[in-house]
Amino acid sequence: MSRSTPLGPGREFDVIRDLLGRWGDRARGVGDDAAILDVPPGEQLVVSTDSSIEDRHFKREWLTPREIGYRATAAALSDLAAMGARPLGVIVAIAVPTGWRDSIGDLADGIGEAASFCQAPIVGGDLSGGRELAITVTVLGTATAPLQRSGARVGNRICVTGTLGGPSRAIVELSAGRVPDDRSRQRFAHPEPRIREARWLATHGATAAVDVSDGVVADAAHVAAASGVVIRIDLEKLPCELGVDSLDAAASGEEYELLVALPAAAAVHDFEALFRLPLTEIGTVVAGAEPGVTTFYRGASVAPPRGYDHFS
Amino acid sequence: MSRSTPLGPGREFDVIRDLLGRWGDRARGVGDDAAILDVPPGEQLVVSTDSSIEDRHFKREWLTPREIGYRATAAALSDLAAMGARPLGVIVAIAVPTGWRDSIGDLADGIGEAASFCQAPIVGGDLSGGRELAITVTVLGTATAPLQRSGARVGNRICVTGTLGGPSRAIVELSAGRVPDDRSRQRFAHPEPRIREARWLATHGATAAVDVSDGVVADAAHVAAASGVVIRIDLEKLPCELGVDSLDAAASGEEYELLVALPAAAAVHDFEALFRLPLTEIGTVVAGAEPGVTTFYRGASVAPPRGYDHFS
Repeated sequence: MSRSTPLGPGREFDVIRDLLGRWGDRARGVGDDAAILDVPPGEQLVVSTDSSIEDRHFKREWLTPREIGYRATAAALSDLAAMGARPLGVIVAIAVPTGWRDSIGDLADGIGEAASFCQAPIVGGDLSGGRELAITVTVLGTATAPLQRSGARVGNRICVTGTLGGPSRAIVELSAGRVPDDRSRQRFAHPEPRIREARWLATHGATAAVDVSDGVVADAAHVAAASGVVIRIDLEKLPCELGVDSLDAAASGEEYELLVALPAAAAVHDFEALFRLPLTEIGTVVAGAEPGVTTFYRGASVAPPRGYDHFS
Repeated sequence: MSRSTPLGPGREFDVIRDLLGRWGDRARGVGDDAAILDVPPGEQLVVSTDSSIEDRHFKREWLTPREIGYRATAAALSDLAAMGARPLGVIVAIAVPTGWRDSIGDLADGIGEAASFCQAPIVGGDLSGGRELAITVTVLGTATAPLQRSGARVGNRICVTGTLGGPSRAIVELSAGRVPDDRSRQRFAHPEPRIREARWLATHGATAAVDVSDGVVADAAHVAAASGVVIRIDLEKLPCELGVDSLDAAASGEEYELLVALPAAAAVHDFEALFRLPLTEIGTVVAGAEPGVTTFYRGASVAPPRGYDHFS
């Protein structure tokens, strides 16, 4: 990757030059019609796109501009974690309403922070006006054997990283005009893409993974559908944040934790010791005629909680 | 690339299933956390993102939904042409306001048409609500030696494909509430990314390229800045659409034609015979202390026309 290419004159390009200045050597090769990247021989390219839109994914008064930029970028990078991929770069398209222009620098600082955290250079972007703030982040990564949703097999254990329920509790409090507790707010505002953790899991036998964006049960349903299996989740096993009940934890989206299918012999304790992060078995992959998720609570079958639907 | 991965239940996923049904085998590998793509050995990855936002890049009453989807996708793919890259895939993030929901299918048909035209499979996306329609298309391609903006050298000829001025004339007419002539409307609504043409030029000595999105003079300024050279443009040489004057043609953006720097001996006539498309010399790369564009009209120095600034 090269240094950034000088741009011609124009107000739009002045703004881009300012952003590039803020990002410093976290931005590389920006300024041509497209970014040029090298994919290591023997690896596959992994690509995903994720949008964060004002009043859809966040409200302006909930987060600082820096947090909004960070969170949009971290959420997108989390999809690389879900594939067990190593980040190659991020591309950021931003639609900036007039009332947000003074915050572009802070948004950019947050974008840069998330990119740095995942060691992903910023390699390109697009800047325009809009009626609402919209940040669309495309992430590129590489992997020799990407972790797919379709690999779960009967007999696998279903595990989840971290603890669940913080983001949904923060959203409930913020929506009610209250101030959430620090821990819940942090879980909502500052998710950490589990890039390193996913790569460890991929090299230690994980057969399938998804990042928890719609709620752990809804995301398990994607793995079940893709793998053609039934996933049984025992709700009492969910690693809940203090003060969060299992049903709320099961439906809490935008966690950006990983749900993984692991062989029975996987070294969960090694993971926890290395990353100082819980890796909790919450269910198993079982045989069944119709792919899907079954939910149990203390041994009794219960109705599954509903995840968040961005399109409802 | 694999077939698409089954998704779990949910309204959002029902819409995605409908889109995948429309795209048929033009969509590949959609449904996991990210798309997995193979980059041919010895080639580099080329990536770019481009947003089309309602009331910024188009007005609803100007175009059919199918044209809006086509145009957004074609505009993004044009950046691959500007790099001389072969398309590998497109990823489409769409923010759909309530009032546009009935048009999602038509938008998708247009997206699919542009992807087909460029032989680029649709490999992923993101769907959410929004206050205005926003289509952000990320394009991925590969090239053994991408055409960059920075390669123009003193002595090169500056050439442009096609004819200029149609889109700006269409926009003037549409903005005034009038119906543009068919040719101008077609040039605005249905740009054809010059993918094959660019690859031919790259293998026939082109040293630098940019696609004309801000206006031919403004885009030449990017090439001049990146290459550290002066580009002299002779406005009377611009290949204008019938009834368009040189100044309007010089400032007309969203043309998605190519501006290329070519060695003096380049086989312009072979290009024109092969593609049945004009390739017109409009200037030269000259030495100068300060990189930039100088504009002349019939031998006399004139002020450069201003391009369109999305951020003004």
